[in-house]
Amino acid sequence: MDAAEVDPVRAGRPGTLSVVPQTDPTAAVPTSAFDAATAVSRGDGGGLTAVLDPGWDVGGGVLNGGYLLSVAARAAVLESPHPHPVALSASYLRAAAAGPAELTVSPGPAGRTLAHSSVVLADASGPAVTVQATTATLGAGAPDFSSPMPAASPVEECFSIAENAHLAPARVTVPGLTLRVDSRIDPLTAGWALGQPADEPVIRAWMRFADGRDPDPLALVTFADALPPTSWALGRFGWAPTVQLQVLVRALPAPGWCLVEARASEITGGWIDEDYRIWDSTGRLVAQSRQLARAPRGA
Amino acid sequence: MDAAEVDPVRAGRPGTLSVVPQTDPTAAVPTSAFDAATAVSRGDGGGLTAVLDPGWDVGGGVLNGGYLLSVAARAAVLESPHPHPVALSASYLRAAAAGPAELTVSPGPAGRTLAHSSVVLADASGPAVTVQATTATLGAGAPDFSSPMPAASPVEECFSIAENAHLAPARVTVPGLTLRVDSRIDPLTAGWALGQPADEPVIRAWMRFADGRDPDPLALVTFADALPPTSWALGRFGWAPTVQLQVLVRALPAPGWCLVEARASEITGGWIDEDYRIWDSTGRLVAQSRQLARAPRGA
Repeated sequence: MDAAEVDPVRAGRPGTLSVVPQTDPTAAVPTSAFDAATAVSRGDGGGLTAVLDPGWDVGGGVLNGGYLLSVAARAAVLESPHPHPVALSASYLRAAAAGPAELTVSPGPAGRTLAHSSVVLADASGPAVTVQATTATLGAGAPDFSSPMPAASPVEECFSIAENAHLAPARVTVPGLTLRVDSRIDPLTAGWALGQPADEPVIRAWMRFADGRDPDPLALVTFADALPPTSWALGRFGWAPTVQLQVLVRALPAPGWCLVEARASEITGGWIDEDYRIWDSTGRLVAQSRQLARAPRGA
Repeated sequence: MDAAEVDPVRAGRPGTLSVVPQTDPTAAVPTSAFDAATAVSRGDGGGLTAVLDPGWDVGGGVLNGGYLLSVAARAAVLESPHPHPVALSASYLRAAAAGPAELTVSPGPAGRTLAHSSVVLADASGPAVTVQATTATLGAGAPDFSSPMPAASPVEECFSIAENAHLAPARVTVPGLTLRVDSRIDPLTAGWALGQPADEPVIRAWMRFADGRDPDPLALVTFADALPPTSWALGRFGWAPTVQLQVLVRALPAPGWCLVEARASEITGGWIDEDYRIWDSTGRLVAQSRQLARAPRGA
């Protein structure tokens, strides 16, 4: 495939990116791949269900933790008086299988400012992800204090993971996630992809959905776990399964590209942390996350 | 009180600090204030209970969130095959009252590497804190990568909160926490205490228990929420109740002082985040935390 054919920036036609399959081509109103894949329905008995989409994997058929958390967040919001997830903490008990899933929301205290709940996402084999959710109503006000966006190379000079999948180490399968979340890695943190690992576990990328759907709080929850493990920056490839992930959504993001920066503070004893900060296209900090994951073995 | 009389660094007698009441003066083996205040017992029916100590408050009788999380972590460890809390995510549903509390631990998947569980801490009025806990066994190995400790003023040049409580704004009550956790704030981040607020919401301090008990993973959980809100650095005083707090313990800390740095990334719409990193006396990163809290009003 010619890279120029699938580059939404150069083509200026982000909605027509042909590598993203239409999840529901018969729908009267076009639905973004993300909204379709995270849809939560209420059954006749009142219970909430979803159909986990195998296309949001991180390789080897394992569904992305941020994607699963977005599904749980949608369930939390459905059962809350508030529209936005502002704090989510998830424990990943085991890999969730693609296909039908049940979402059980247990409401906690709720008030004018915020509401607490817990959410259990279960597949046919039982609970896979447990989530503590805090929902609230994010406003449009300017921040009193906000960390400025770091310097980053322009999008058009960045390294597209999807377009360069052929460069991946042989043992790494190309994740479906990289076809749905368009990540453009700052060349200053992309040396690992070209055989030149760095000294610091940092990866910085522009990010948006490949089909052009604009970011919102639910999207930020997926973005907050959508980069490769930062151990890859050191040339240590391999899967880094998430153990616990906390995502904070701080503001409603503006349309367009987000800048996502992930950084590890310590890699030791088979464990790694991943610390994300996300700024929207206006340069405002809109989300943060931190996770503890198992560190990839391998060189 | 003469500051020199209660300064364990100058006095070299950290175990005899007279401002810390002995929690159990009749005990044959001296028990640290922290171990006594976080003790968890198993009742005849097998349930776990604790007695929340009113002395670990942050002002106005409100118990410190890190202290409550240490109690929950102790319960999680008691019911786990692993001895150390490595990831804890807590939702603070409402202020917990001092006095008897019940701890209900629901075990999740457990294996050779880690174990999951959830813990509910309830006082007489019902659930106050819900926690997702991951326990594991931390080793003694050197890290593959670790963020270096930032430069900080020597302990003896730092600003003791306990010794300078008389400088606090009239509306701020002196927290019991500051008598039990000895915090020495780097003068470079202590301007707010002397009427000279800074431009950045950062507070950095040396920290250890006032009675000289050395740090361990359970102690780090309390340290990870023991500094004043970083909004105070900007001169915005007032209480910042924690909504959700995640603590990661990354290594077994060496004896002695820890360096604790707290930083807010965004203050907006009545919300603030607090991002902690903790290094031990050898300069190794041993813990991280992030919380979402309500931002103090007031000037």
